Amino acid sequence: MTSRNLQVLLARRPEGRLHESHFALREAPLPVLAPGEVLVRTRYLSIDAANRVWLFPVASYRPPVEVGAVMDGITLCEVVESRDADYRPGELVKCDAGWQAYAALPAHRLRRVERRTPITHALSALGPTGRTAYFGVLEIGRVKAGETFLVSAAAGAVGSLAGQIAKLHGCRVVGVAGTDEKCRWLKEELGFDAAINYRAEDLPSALTRHCPGGVDVYFDNVGGRVLQAVVYRMAPHGRIVCCGEVSVYDTDAPLRGPLGIPGILTIRRVRMEGFLVRDHEARRPEADAALGRWLDEGKLKVREDVLEGLESAPRALVGLLRGENIGKRLVSVAG
Amino acid sequence: MTSRNLQVLLARRPEGRLHESHFALREAPLPVLAPGEVLVRTRYLSIDAANRVWLFPVASYRPPVEVGAVMDGITLCEVVESRDADYRPGELVKCDAGWQAYAALPAHRLRRVERRTPITHALSALGPTGRTAYFGVLEIGRVKAGETFLVSAAAGAVGSLAGQIAKLHGCRVVGVAGTDEKCRWLKEELGFDAAINYRAEDLPSALTRHCPGGVDVYFDNVGGRVLQAVVYRMAPHGRIVCCGEVSVYDTDAPLRGPLGIPGILTIRRVRMEGFLVRDHEARRPEADAALGRWLDEGKLKVREDVLEGLESAPRALVGLLRGENIGKRLVSVAG
Repeated sequence: MTSRNLQVLLARRPEGRLHESHFALREAPLPVLAPGEVLVRTRYLSIDAANRVWLFPVASYRPPVEVGAVMDGITLCEVVESRDADYRPGELVKCDAGWQAYAALPAHRLRRVERRTPITHALSALGPTGRTAYFGVLEIGRVKAGETFLVSAAAGAVGSLAGQIAKLHGCRVVGVAGTDEKCRWLKEELGFDAAINYRAEDLPSALTRHCPGGVDVYFDNVGGRVLQAVVYRMAPHGRIVCCGEVSVYDTDAPLRGPLGIPGILTIRRVRMEGFLVRDHEARRPEADAALGRWLDEGKLKVREDVLEGLESAPRALVGLLRGENIGKRLVSVAG
Repeated sequence: MTSRNLQVLLARRPEGRLHESHFALREAPLPVLAPGEVLVRTRYLSIDAANRVWLFPVASYRPPVEVGAVMDGITLCEVVESRDADYRPGELVKCDAGWQAYAALPAHRLRRVERRTPITHALSALGPTGRTAYFGVLEIGRVKAGETFLVSAAAGAVGSLAGQIAKLHGCRVVGVAGTDEKCRWLKEELGFDAAINYRAEDLPSALTRHCPGGVDVYFDNVGGRVLQAVVYRMAPHGRIVCCGEVSVYDTDAPLRGPLGIPGILTIRRVRMEGFLVRDHEARRPEADAALGRWLDEGKLKVREDVLEGLESAPRALVGLLRGENIGKRLVSVAG
């Protein structure tokens, strides 16, 4: 085992668009364990649009990452050394170790992970990503068979699972994505009923064409102009699941609020509701069981997009914000 | 009985602000009854902000009033003549007779009204106004004791009832209104915990002062800049009840969407939901019973603001849109 740690720090706070230069790589000594702590080695790092939100100068749903600190991030790790009775070397755990090769964490911040093949599913379909899709579609969206379900960032980690879960519940599923390749994947591999390339097509007319009866449930990962177009196409008693707003996380363009809100919500009795997956911890066993079963039965397809090496994490996040990934983006640190 | 009817027509469609000149008064012959129809005489006309929405050139939740047609309006009427076995002269009914002294309506469009004192309560606390407040607070807002409840257009018909209903359910109630007189009435007569004059005070800082823990439930009757200020002051797991948006119904200023939506909804897990009272017909008996009981027990105070004569209806609506009424605005046609 090495005696050195490798870390990616936030070097300066982004204003406007994020660049790799906002981060810096640093070597550091390995942390020394206190009683009750566990030394973990990062195997995979989850790259999520929400990471960009954590860089805002003010608190969102968690405190901002401070300049000079290790970048926050959800990780799949292996226990290397333990001063807690519950954990032993070699065990696989999920935690927020951040963008570093090793971390010393109190045992209560770890969660033991069942060793499945591939182990990366613990960060995609069987991680927060999968549960976000699950609770967003079922608990917030409350989809019913026969309804029209629209999802944006549909080829992303959450969107691709959300669409498939809605499809499993009998919805007609339409995805919005940013390239023809993504749209083909949604239709040909994932079984979406339709897909719209918002960069190439006129979004309002494409929505009217593919959702002729209006949108019953819109799973919104992007906000911005896609949300704007969808608001006016919501069906009566529709639901907008506010999962994310990636179109505005990484921009210096002036923000605009969506027209038609609140008016359309009232006239069409639409519910628009935000959620965080961590509020649904009580139903985690149910979600994990369902997601695991669908995976085993081949009903849920998971695509992972893995970059190699901790040093590629900044590039992985910048690229994700530009829409370059299909499926769940991960960084293999010690895969 | 006169042989002539008096009607207020929509003379031209408003673009921007509504004026009395958009309406015209007309005499017409009394309608002749077909079998199954009932001739009613209007006693009181309900003046509602929603009337302005019905003048938009496109359908809202009901078809637009056509130019040259009698203006739509909810009315409390007395049966004058009946060709339906269920109704007899002298009975009191609620219906959408519109802005006219007499109307011939099929019996299924009437609803018999219990004769209480004053009979006008059938259009205020015991009419759609009362039920809008009831379902908005309890079914959409789901208020809980100890929560902070904020309502805009708080001195209006729905707002003043909504605040009192929230207070009856143990909330701390804050009202937003447009004059000091209204604010005094809310605090001194209706028992609101605080009231903010949005025209005289700095709204963001007043909200911070009066809702230090954030707003748990915002009953929104106005949209616009009040909604904008409240969005950023919503408490985690808060609810925004989208009842109306009167600040934008009668304006030619360019519309702006609320910033912070959807972002704040997600981060704070806020639900924003529109509703129409007509969707809650199944629970009407429960609502009417509760509202009637609170009235009888003196727990709900109702203020009515009555203008005299059908010809005053245009002025009554224009004035309501400018915020001149306190409580429920009615026009006495044959009181």
